[in-house]
Amino acid sequence: VKRESVEEKRRRLLQKAKASVSSAYAGEEHAIIEAINSYLEMDKVKNLVFERLEEWYSIYFPELRISNQVTYAKFILKYGANKKSADHSGLSELLGDKAKDVENAIIRSIGREPSDDEYKTLSSIASLFVSIASMQDSLSDYIDRSTKRIMPNISYLVDTKIAAELLSRAGSLNKLAFMPASTIQLLGAEKALFKHLKYGSRPPKYGILYKMPQVANAGKHNGGRIARIYATKISIASKADAFSKRFIADTLKKNIESTISSNRNRNG
Amino acid sequence: VKRESVEEKRRRLLQKAKASVSSAYAGEEHAIIEAINSYLEMDKVKNLVFERLEEWYSIYFPELRISNQVTYAKFILKYGANKKSADHSGLSELLGDKAKDVENAIIRSIGREPSDDEYKTLSSIASLFVSIASMQDSLSDYIDRSTKRIMPNISYLVDTKIAAELLSRAGSLNKLAFMPASTIQLLGAEKALFKHLKYGSRPPKYGILYKMPQVANAGKHNGGRIARIYATKISIASKADAFSKRFIADTLKKNIESTISSNRNRNG
Repeated sequence: VKRESVEEKRRRLLQKAKASVSSAYAGEEHAIIEAINSYLEMDKVKNLVFERLEEWYSIYFPELRISNQVTYAKFILKYGANKKSADHSGLSELLGDKAKDVENAIIRSIGREPSDDEYKTLSSIASLFVSIASMQDSLSDYIDRSTKRIMPNISYLVDTKIAAELLSRAGSLNKLAFMPASTIQLLGAEKALFKHLKYGSRPPKYGILYKMPQVANAGKHNGGRIARIYATKISIASKADAFSKRFIADTLKKNIESTISSNRNRNG
Repeated sequence: VKRESVEEKRRRLLQKAKASVSSAYAGEEHAIIEAINSYLEMDKVKNLVFERLEEWYSIYFPELRISNQVTYAKFILKYGANKKSADHSGLSELLGDKAKDVENAIIRSIGREPSDDEYKTLSSIASLFVSIASMQDSLSDYIDRSTKRIMPNISYLVDTKIAAELLSRAGSLNKLAFMPASTIQLLGAEKALFKHLKYGSRPPKYGILYKMPQVANAGKHNGGRIARIYATKISIASKADAFSKRFIADTLKKNIESTISSNRNRNG
């Protein structure tokens, strides 16, 4: 047998390494991880831009109160150049039953109107804000579609965003499938867990799962228990998503519901 | 004389307060302050979005190296769906003499192509990034135009962005005009000054003015001196911008240049 030269060996090993990196990124899982990280980051981006927009427009209309940020930006795009031009029917269309309040605010406003040059720049911030919000919506749609495709069981048990976050924290579906339920329960609580181990502070009861209303609304004492119940079933669901590919989440969900209600009875 | 009722007095004082707030926001100065604050914040926004974009697209084309962020985003918009489709003339148009490097990277890339669904979402982030960059450009244009109009003397001495930042830190052109040169020199270095006063650390030599290449490139020993020379003339320029409205900045600039060069000679 002819022995491999160093150069041949180098090339072969490099090829192998490339192929393994390539296959690691081949799955759609990585796109989901990027999508959920982008989705979460867009909250920060939206806030940064909205703060600027609101502060700037306050020069011209400090009395304006619209709680929905996208509606606020759309108000600027529609009436920001000259708020006095706002008509009742247009305001009603944009603001619903808040139109009257805004009409009154326009009448008593102490703000001047922006110059053309000011408005041109201000309105470009407003339309950027609307673009960011709609981009976040399309990220959200993609996450919904892709998690239902790639991890149908987990995303049936918990919200698709939470499913994607669990995937992102675990690193891959395979890793998630091999995690014990107790680890899944604490995914996203790494900092608190570290503090507990190092400084002896109270151990965390949940990480990402706290974003579920069922956990968040359960109160101090029940939250941990409910998170554990979910984590146990998510662990089973992730094995199904990663390996058997069978849909078993409807049964799991019924299990969760009956476990929670029987626990409640026992404690009631 | 009929005495004012409490209600009448209340209304009169409220009216007066409103009028004074209203006039405080009447000037274009406030729009400039909002614009420069937005402009600076957009750097942060651009970085957040670009990090997401680059990390995501690295799944499909980890070998891509394009240092200009907008060009990177445009590459994704043009060829991200299928990088193998990139032709030499199109790449040259986008990348200039870097086209060859990218062509080679495409040939040896280990990344797969995105699915349609992945690309749809990814490209929406790319086009958002391009929008943010172009919005920042229009903010920049507005700041150029408006500072030249409102503070022609200061913006002749220093870059228009720095002029706007000085205005923003001072709060108004009037306040800036009443500031001693030593305060102007340290505008933007409030934190370091506080540390100096409280903990006895070394006093700062400059704040915003450090963004001027003339100051930044002057070295450790000269930077403070040059910042002081500029601050002295900015103080005079701000009085002209706020009160006399005469254009004296060309004389001031000649003064600065001769002071700097005579100082240099003395020390040389």
